Amino acid sequence: MHNFSDATRFIQQADRFLVLSHLHPDGDAIGSTLAMGHLLRSLGKEVVMVNESPVPQKFRFLPETREILMPQEVSEKFHHVIALDAADRERMGTCRELFADGVQILNIDHHATNDLYGTINVVMPTAAATVEILFDWIEFMQCKVDLSLASYIYMGLLTDTGGFRYSNTTPKVLRQAARLVELGVKSHEIADIVLETTTIGQLNLLQKALSTLQLAQDGSIAWMVLKRNDIEPDQEVEGIVNYARNIEGVDVGILFREIDEQTVKVSLRSRKKTDVGQLAKSFGGGGHARAAGCTIHASLEEAQKSVLSRLQAKREFEEA
Amino acid sequence: MHNFSDATRFIQQADRFLVLSHLHPDGDAIGSTLAMGHLLRSLGKEVVMVNESPVPQKFRFLPETREILMPQEVSEKFHHVIALDAADRERMGTCRELFADGVQILNIDHHATNDLYGTINVVMPTAAATVEILFDWIEFMQCKVDLSLASYIYMGLLTDTGGFRYSNTTPKVLRQAARLVELGVKSHEIADIVLETTTIGQLNLLQKALSTLQLAQDGSIAWMVLKRNDIEPDQEVEGIVNYARNIEGVDVGILFREIDEQTVKVSLRSRKKTDVGQLAKSFGGGGHARAAGCTIHASLEEAQKSVLSRLQAKREFEEA
Repeated sequence: MHNFSDATRFIQQADRFLVLSHLHPDGDAIGSTLAMGHLLRSLGKEVVMVNESPVPQKFRFLPETREILMPQEVSEKFHHVIALDAADRERMGTCRELFADGVQILNIDHHATNDLYGTINVVMPTAAATVEILFDWIEFMQCKVDLSLASYIYMGLLTDTGGFRYSNTTPKVLRQAARLVELGVKSHEIADIVLETTTIGQLNLLQKALSTLQLAQDGSIAWMVLKRNDIEPDQEVEGIVNYARNIEGVDVGILFREIDEQTVKVSLRSRKKTDVGQLAKSFGGGGHARAAGCTIHASLEEAQKSVLSRLQAKREFEEA
Repeated sequence: MHNFSDATRFIQQADRFLVLSHLHPDGDAIGSTLAMGHLLRSLGKEVVMVNESPVPQKFRFLPETREILMPQEVSEKFHHVIALDAADRERMGTCRELFADGVQILNIDHHATNDLYGTINVVMPTAAATVEILFDWIEFMQCKVDLSLASYIYMGLLTDTGGFRYSNTTPKVLRQAARLVELGVKSHEIADIVLETTTIGQLNLLQKALSTLQLAQDGSIAWMVLKRNDIEPDQEVEGIVNYARNIEGVDVGILFREIDEQTVKVSLRSRKKTDVGQLAKSFGGGGHARAAGCTIHASLEEAQKSVLSRLQAKREFEEA
């Protein structure tokens, strides 16, 4: 039963828990943190929720996100920790400073790369999201799922499957989503806030990027450029590269983002053919076949030239 | 049983059918046409599929779309017609010219406005899509659902629920989707092609629209403008207004689209408060509270001025 019995004993044996997830939290990190905190409190436990990074604006519509603290706001050390969606201890950031000597950790995660750092490990790489595992465990314990808990689980499922669009959208995920909607989750409101809502700053950035859009190799490569002054501090640039990748006929989409005069961040996405992970690695970067990135120490013009020429050579070689 | 017995007898009594849907077909129109045609053929029937409008490019990845003909390509008259997702006969366009005298029509639809024009009517306004009704009926008949049929049904569910993001995404829809994925539907490939893929023309148009983006009334109204020369003939403009509506803090998003010197099409979307259907109606247009449109016979500048001033007055009045 995936260690659910051990996990259940773990929460039965103590009264006070630290609940955390990984830094730069996504919807599954926030959703699983809130779900775990909410569940423990409903079982009469005391809980402190922390994250190394502030909760992103788009998740703050959920009232309990206000209770997710920064580690520096917490002075206590904890003997019982529940870590969610965190593949290794590094991913917890400075939250680790809140661990007491001899800390016991319940590690619940769906990443295949999880290094099993927990005292008890509930790691299921076949799950689309950590909340999927939590939902299974909650049903194993036969706990009540109220509307808040259901909404937190739904948010994790929705975001980690790209709105049920990625290949990890299994029949099981869709059936869990069906049960959560039955429990009253306002799925369309969550989707609207978390997936659809943007900011004027984001749209201005998109407009600037789109105005630089170019195609190469018979329209199979599309790229865009953002200059230093285009981007405000802390502005999210993440989704923009997908506009290039999503053009009909394009296999590789690229965003070149100038950091300073001699530093360019390159985001690479591919649809089917080209392994952009290999390309990124050849520039000292990383990632996988469909999504990768690298940092190039050169001017914006030089970076474009070298990435595009190496990419075109790679594609020509592979097609030959 | 929603008339499923009568519908079953309808297809048992004849050997040759005309299958059609509404003009300007969306994913549910194409999906339900293909599903019905495929099902009938698997039952040994002869089928001609037609649509008044050409199949949009984004659905042509499905091989059987090639068999959906234009009415002028068909010289025969039909005694047995199955109409899908069409609320009234008007919506069928010139496909009606293929009806023999005394034609019998099986009308399967989920629109609440359906006027029950059929000899047999299977109209379920609680269904999210016409394919949802088809899937129920196919299960009622205990017919085999092969991968093609499953994919057609999935496409209809996916598109008519906005990728499972609209409020019509019921637990039943999600459970049907789960069963279809279990039957082998490559849900992520369909989502990628139908929902994510765009064209360079679409992105250029988006860029032009975004470059005109303006806010009013403390950021609660956002609008964009497209001039005649920005738009190529037959270019889809539909989704662009949502970029304005989706900005954080915005309640009403508007796209003004110049048709000629004295004609402007106005698309209106609202998030929660303002009934844009009322506003559109006051300009002789139509729609509902969250999505509406009208055509104004004035210059682009005049049209903007009158819509924005009437909208602002309406919002100020309602807040007072």
